[in-house]
Amino acid sequence: MGNYKNIMKKIKKALISVSDKKNLKGLLRILIKHKVSLISSGGTYKEIIRLKFKCLEVSEYTGSPEILGGRVKTLHPKIHAGILSKRNNRSHLKDLRNNNFEEIDLVIVNFYPFEKTLEQTNNHLKIIENIDVGGPTMVRAAAKNYNDVAVITSSEQYSELINEMEKHNGSTSFKFREKMSLEAFSETAYYDSVISNYFNKINKSAFPRKKTIYANLIEKLRYGENPHQKAAIYSKTQSLNINQIHGKQLSYNNYNDIFSALSISKSLPKNLGTVIVKHANPCGVSIIKDKLKSYQSALACDPISAFGGIVSCNFKINRKLALELNNLFLEVVIANGFDSEALKVLKRRKNLRLIDAKNFKMENLLRFNSVSTSVLTQSEDREKFTIKNFKIVSKKKPNKSQLKNLIFAFNVCRYVKSNAIVLASQEATVGIGSGQPSRLDSCQIAIDKMNKFQNLKDEIVAASDAFFPFVDGIEKLVQSGVSAVIQPSGSIRDKEIIKFANQTNTVLVFSKTRHFRH
Amino acid sequence: MGNYKNIMKKIKKALISVSDKKNLKGLLRILIKHKVSLISSGGTYKEIIRLKFKCLEVSEYTGSPEILGGRVKTLHPKIHAGILSKRNNRSHLKDLRNNNFEEIDLVIVNFYPFEKTLEQTNNHLKIIENIDVGGPTMVRAAAKNYNDVAVITSSEQYSELINEMEKHNGSTSFKFREKMSLEAFSETAYYDSVISNYFNKINKSAFPRKKTIYANLIEKLRYGENPHQKAAIYSKTQSLNINQIHGKQLSYNNYNDIFSALSISKSLPKNLGTVIVKHANPCGVSIIKDKLKSYQSALACDPISAFGGIVSCNFKINRKLALELNNLFLEVVIANGFDSEALKVLKRRKNLRLIDAKNFKMENLLRFNSVSTSVLTQSEDREKFTIKNFKIVSKKKPNKSQLKNLIFAFNVCRYVKSNAIVLASQEATVGIGSGQPSRLDSCQIAIDKMNKFQNLKDEIVAASDAFFPFVDGIEKLVQSGVSAVIQPSGSIRDKEIIKFANQTNTVLVFSKTRHFRH
Repeated sequence: MGNYKNIMKKIKKALISVSDKKNLKGLLRILIKHKVSLISSGGTYKEIIRLKFKCLEVSEYTGSPEILGGRVKTLHPKIHAGILSKRNNRSHLKDLRNNNFEEIDLVIVNFYPFEKTLEQTNNHLKIIENIDVGGPTMVRAAAKNYNDVAVITSSEQYSELINEMEKHNGSTSFKFREKMSLEAFSETAYYDSVISNYFNKINKSAFPRKKTIYANLIEKLRYGENPHQKAAIYSKTQSLNINQIHGKQLSYNNYNDIFSALSISKSLPKNLGTVIVKHANPCGVSIIKDKLKSYQSALACDPISAFGGIVSCNFKINRKLALELNNLFLEVVIANGFDSEALKVLKRRKNLRLIDAKNFKMENLLRFNSVSTSVLTQSEDREKFTIKNFKIVSKKKPNKSQLKNLIFAFNVCRYVKSNAIVLASQEATVGIGSGQPSRLDSCQIAIDKMNKFQNLKDEIVAASDAFFPFVDGIEKLVQSGVSAVIQPSGSIRDKEIIKFANQTNTVLVFSKTRHFRH
Repeated sequence: MGNYKNIMKKIKKALISVSDKKNLKGLLRILIKHKVSLISSGGTYKEIIRLKFKCLEVSEYTGSPEILGGRVKTLHPKIHAGILSKRNNRSHLKDLRNNNFEEIDLVIVNFYPFEKTLEQTNNHLKIIENIDVGGPTMVRAAAKNYNDVAVITSSEQYSELINEMEKHNGSTSFKFREKMSLEAFSETAYYDSVISNYFNKINKSAFPRKKTIYANLIEKLRYGENPHQKAAIYSKTQSLNINQIHGKQLSYNNYNDIFSALSISKSLPKNLGTVIVKHANPCGVSIIKDKLKSYQSALACDPISAFGGIVSCNFKINRKLALELNNLFLEVVIANGFDSEALKVLKRRKNLRLIDAKNFKMENLLRFNSVSTSVLTQSEDREKFTIKNFKIVSKKKPNKSQLKNLIFAFNVCRYVKSNAIVLASQEATVGIGSGQPSRLDSCQIAIDKMNKFQNLKDEIVAASDAFFPFVDGIEKLVQSGVSAVIQPSGSIRDKEIIKFANQTNTVLVFSKTRHFRH
């Protein structure tokens, strides 16, 4: 840390200005015990007096009144010179003396609750009033001058400050001040990022010139996708809104799979459907009403891949299904709640992670991902498309069941890594081909899966996430029993493909919407 | 915008304090023309006087001297009440009158160049000194009170201000003030985020409780992965350090593929190697010295998938290679520069995007990606592993060529979507299986590719990104001609797999490192 020395600093004067007045009493007792003189303003001053501690009001200290209904209280040179002066700088010391200013050694400030106000109201004037100006200024000044000054920005840090002062007889160590300074800048950056994102949101400015993203640490993870990578999970809100009720700690890959699974689950009809995910890719999806049958159909799509995967049920799990789930080795089971009998059954598996996701909601936020210094950001691929968006281009028109399965398969294929081919029958996927640079290969993989695991008597439909560049892909599908195909269209060979569909009496629907996912 | 009214505000008094003194003259001329009285401090005051405009010094205005070597100049109630007072609030007006304060209608401030200082020095004291306290306070106050006050935070906004004042005869519109306020909070948030990230970096605090990420808009993109998604690309630095020298605008998917390709290219030996990427997955990689042969070998791995893909050369492209590249439809060609003759050849293709990436460097930054409110972050999978990290577990030891190819294949497999199987021979991939939930399927895909496109006489090696759960995968590889396999190990069936390797006289290496990528 450059020329900074590891020296103790005695706290003689403290400035306190807190919106969150929790836990003040214990802290004040310690400050007074160590003979710290207190300055404060507004509501904090009143609270300190109410708690029967001695305190000087800021306006009295500066000789300048609190004005503009509290908008200007602490923005005074006597306060800021007291915080910012370098104790080892003679000219600074002289400036203080000449102006009759005194050193302030400790700044305890937390801000007007801007973020909380956002959660509580849409009243713009009220929100604006909760932009703290004085607080961040004092905190930033103290954090800049952490070589001499300690800064506390949250009531959660009080116990650390108390320990520090008790240990060092009313002083703080450089290490402590440095840590608090780091946390202070993390606080001011976070605070202004929330403000900035609010302004961007109400002004519909999705891509500002300078962008900041803020997030709260949920937990450090044992490691990342692989053991030699370090990792953590954050949330833009205070919690992820998923509740782990049983099992081992979630890993990076678990979280990644969980959000893949929930993305799909939340796109299915409400309280309906099962999704099985492995390596962040679905390997079985169904929207059958009967819970047990729904899971069994999703599993039937690729029972080998499902081994060690995660199951996400868009409904409450009952005992019957729980018993069935216990027959397979799974990493995670997600549901909109569990019957108590189901829980009892599933908890027999000590390591199985059980997640209640009934409070989870897919928010309409931009997605972003980074490589090195680059950050790609985009809106989610969540728009709902229905038959109104589609165009039936074949002579043969889809029957009701085909149509239902086509829409289902096309919705699922948006969550499958490109190139994606999804085969479906009776409201369940029956073959998924994913992650291939060649669309023909994805067709082949989907067909191979279907032929390996299923013995279908019902009609089979297929969805493709992007257009078929040649006839060969659709040809392969039709030869394997597919009777209806949905795909975006846009190839220069679209006409040939329509011709092929008509020759083979196949239903062909152009979705006009592409669903790449990489 | 709540109860805010769309009213014009006349600018009578402006406070100017700028670190970046560019383009002041033209702006000052307009301000004086519209009879705006100016207040300024420090170097800005001197510059305004030098430019021969009339200006009052802040210390004279407040009656309070500039102290602590400039650390405390503007932190004064006369300044901040002047900025923060609501013009339509009687009690505010009274407070101003009683204290002999005046309204400040325009704040022109840009901050101490903290970010630039970081680029120029490691001197912590100098860096700390470049944390601006007064500037952000004035800007935040003005931005909060944008109903009455205009705030300018960058010399790039001067022309907008000039236009606005000229258009409205010295006034600003609500819309203008609102826009400037939005940009001001984006500036303060960005500024403190840079500071916070600096402190976290030097204190090795990778996962702070509250995290902010900052980025600069590089460009808005036509759309995201799909046309119905909006998108943009940002950079944590001022530029992406890739230089597009020809062709159509880059799309979201182009960028995504480019960073995939560069991740691999930068992991290969310097100035050696060709990578072909399709759908963010490699479909051919080679590290052969001869440039033409290097490309031809990478292409041979999967010439069908390469169609419409992107080629990244870890070297300067010459004319001979350029002629060969023109035989294939490609979206993007990346290289460490192009010979002028090569450029001439490649530019014949009007739409082909040419990227010079010789200045691109993979920075050691955390990666992050988000879904809804969740943000997963992890360090890159970039650690270099060599034979020292590996363990040869078979009786048969690898020969020099096998060893070289094993290390090459294992490096490539970390960039292939899981489950990944990479077959290599003669320093080039000859089959890649990717994106399958079942490892056995990935083996089959890699083998099928190899058999379809290659007619190999040399030894073939295989790398797997994670362990083989059963013997079947490795069995399939050996039956197809693979003579050496590298895999992490860790399965309960490791012993069976070693036994199988010994029975078939196969080289088996345990890397002990896993390379999942999802």
